[in-house]
Amino acid sequence: MTDTSLADTPKARRKVVVVGAGFAGLSVARGLAKADVDVTVLDRHNYHCFQPLLYQVATAELSPADIAWPIRHVLKYQANAKVLLANVTGVDVANKRVVADTVTVPYDELVLATGATHSYFGRDEWAAVAPGLKRIEDATVIRRKLLIAFERAELADDPAVREQLLTFAIVGAGPTGVEMAGAIVEVAKHVMPSDFRRIDPRTARVILIEAGPRVLPAFPEALSAYTQASLERMGVDVRVNTRVTNCDATGVDLEGGRLDAATIIWAAGVVASPAGEWIAAGRDRAGRVQVEKDLSVPGHPEIFVIGDTSAVSREDGSPVPGVAPAAKQMGVYVADVIASRARDAVPPPPFRYKHQGDLATIGRKSAVVKLPYMNLTGFVAWLFWSVIHVFFLIGVRHRIAVAFKWVWDFMTFQRGARLITDQKDQI
Amino acid sequence: MTDTSLADTPKARRKVVVVGAGFAGLSVARGLAKADVDVTVLDRHNYHCFQPLLYQVATAELSPADIAWPIRHVLKYQANAKVLLANVTGVDVANKRVVADTVTVPYDELVLATGATHSYFGRDEWAAVAPGLKRIEDATVIRRKLLIAFERAELADDPAVREQLLTFAIVGAGPTGVEMAGAIVEVAKHVMPSDFRRIDPRTARVILIEAGPRVLPAFPEALSAYTQASLERMGVDVRVNTRVTNCDATGVDLEGGRLDAATIIWAAGVVASPAGEWIAAGRDRAGRVQVEKDLSVPGHPEIFVIGDTSAVSREDGSPVPGVAPAAKQMGVYVADVIASRARDAVPPPPFRYKHQGDLATIGRKSAVVKLPYMNLTGFVAWLFWSVIHVFFLIGVRHRIAVAFKWVWDFMTFQRGARLITDQKDQI
Repeated sequence: MTDTSLADTPKARRKVVVVGAGFAGLSVARGLAKADVDVTVLDRHNYHCFQPLLYQVATAELSPADIAWPIRHVLKYQANAKVLLANVTGVDVANKRVVADTVTVPYDELVLATGATHSYFGRDEWAAVAPGLKRIEDATVIRRKLLIAFERAELADDPAVREQLLTFAIVGAGPTGVEMAGAIVEVAKHVMPSDFRRIDPRTARVILIEAGPRVLPAFPEALSAYTQASLERMGVDVRVNTRVTNCDATGVDLEGGRLDAATIIWAAGVVASPAGEWIAAGRDRAGRVQVEKDLSVPGHPEIFVIGDTSAVSREDGSPVPGVAPAAKQMGVYVADVIASRARDAVPPPPFRYKHQGDLATIGRKSAVVKLPYMNLTGFVAWLFWSVIHVFFLIGVRHRIAVAFKWVWDFMTFQRGARLITDQKDQI
Repeated sequence: MTDTSLADTPKARRKVVVVGAGFAGLSVARGLAKADVDVTVLDRHNYHCFQPLLYQVATAELSPADIAWPIRHVLKYQANAKVLLANVTGVDVANKRVVADTVTVPYDELVLATGATHSYFGRDEWAAVAPGLKRIEDATVIRRKLLIAFERAELADDPAVREQLLTFAIVGAGPTGVEMAGAIVEVAKHVMPSDFRRIDPRTARVILIEAGPRVLPAFPEALSAYTQASLERMGVDVRVNTRVTNCDATGVDLEGGRLDAATIIWAAGVVASPAGEWIAAGRDRAGRVQVEKDLSVPGHPEIFVIGDTSAVSREDGSPVPGVAPAAKQMGVYVADVIASRARDAVPPPPFRYKHQGDLATIGRKSAVVKLPYMNLTGFVAWLFWSVIHVFFLIGVRHRIAVAFKWVWDFMTFQRGARLITDQKDQI
């Protein structure tokens, strides 16, 4: 355990500690670049991950490094910021210190932006057989499962075993579920066929299971209908109003019966990180911290909770969604609050979320986009989606590399990252 | 266990089984494209790895997928070849069957091309603290160790601890050791400095330890001298005539004394894969199988051993080196032998290795190249090295992606794959 307070920080400047370097945390740190404060960013990973493209790592299109960037590299020119690799385990609220495995860091202002993880609604034993998709490691686990299923099917003689190996069940039809279903069916039907000799990968079944009445529940109904029709045309078996009652190593039990599937992917629910427990704050059922209008914690104006760990409402009472633009807006806002305190200025007015739209890609040449004044579907939406996502990657190098891979693989029906790594005990 | 003999293979055609899809095995399979045989390639990985660039994955320049390609994708258009993901555990020589974890495959002709791994000269306990560099997983393990050393140094308060964390010991000064030493010192001096606040990465020490009298012992003496001088100018501490007597978690014991180093990389020795044991063949001290002039095993004209698993001599009695061109030449030759048998033709004359040269890169703008009629050093050698390596990558997509990353990172002093993944229990 190390106390960094004495060694690094001149007495006079306020110490701002940001836990988590996702979209929210990084926005706070960058937003404080010109403020007269010392910023310390703690994260258990050394990189910022561009989560919206995680599904492309999981489906062998991109490499992990294409969507990740070292946090300290992002902040290298920001002299008032430092980055520490540390796994935070708690907060000593009384003494204003963040406690991590490798370090203890005192703060004047603390920003908790530790995100969310998948929720199995109390059935945590499903995690082992139905991985979710929140971190780089999740994506490589899913990639491995996906690719090994085809390899094992090629080796199998029993038709029932082959069929089970070539069945992919995706639970939850939000954007992640839709994107995974579309990408997997394309891999099976366009990328794999000529590579195999004994199986026909085009016979693979991709089943998208949604408990609610429609896919993409947060989108307008017309876009949900369009998405479901598109997926079905691509060969995805979409089952709405279908609840999963159990997951095990060989398949899922649905309300309507059993589905044998070697690969199950969980895209059904999220639960907030345990940051709310660290500070013993009031939380909703998903573990999100109920915050004040300036995103601080009731009774602790020096602690802010933002991003997917925080429960914030829009003006109409509906919740602010767990998307990257919302996380960034909260980060920018809290940086503004802290900066105004540092110079004894009037604090900004209460946080207001500005919804910019919703995007989901369905597959090759197809996406749905909801903008404030218009909806896009099909190829135009897909182009819009692609440009937006390349634009928001960090750094020109990543933008060029990802754009090149997309264009190349679009034209050749390839996937460039079909690696089964670290496969011990997997086959 | 599955027997694929009945299901797939028409009776008449000879069954050729190739174990290992490195340079040697893949050359056999491709060389048999037009032969009237059935080829089955078995590998425990689903990809062919371009080993000469592994050190660039280990030093965070390239992603694993940049230097790997699915074996079945490489052979997708070769109708007489199939690929099975299988971990071979032995050969039933009497019944002509290869035994693997997932499958048993009968053969008429068997080619063993299972490569080599690092040798710790009987001190296998060093493997845990001094990883070698033969597989993709080795490269990501070393990358993680390398990057975590800097992260932990940034967190450390004790100057002695910082110094130990920023000391990198590389054991063995063949091409891999030289390339690792050059790449690590460049990462420390050019890539890292502005990213850190508390440590100065330029103070990192990189020590290249060689038991023999000079670096790159297989190269002409002038190139060894040039390489050592270049490395020393870059800041590498080169210690020739220095033997390692012990490795542990905190450093290495040298004949001259103790060296505290958090990161130890093993590039000192190789030992052949256990393929020689599977067939109970005569082997040299490094486990390499002694083969006939047609690369078949004495007493077993139907079994060939090629690549790093085989001990082959040149005309002057010196051993054929363990490099990619040698493996490829053996593969092409054995394909020729098998094809001529299949059409009852005269077998080709005994295998003759044609040495094309030696290459090693030292760092940014510097390499050494020995060609039959000339030697190159410095920038020209470095350009030659770069072009050759891009050219030999499989597929235009990989060539463009790697060339782009090299040009970009050359100009910007970046490294594009600085990811610490799967770090459980590592910090």
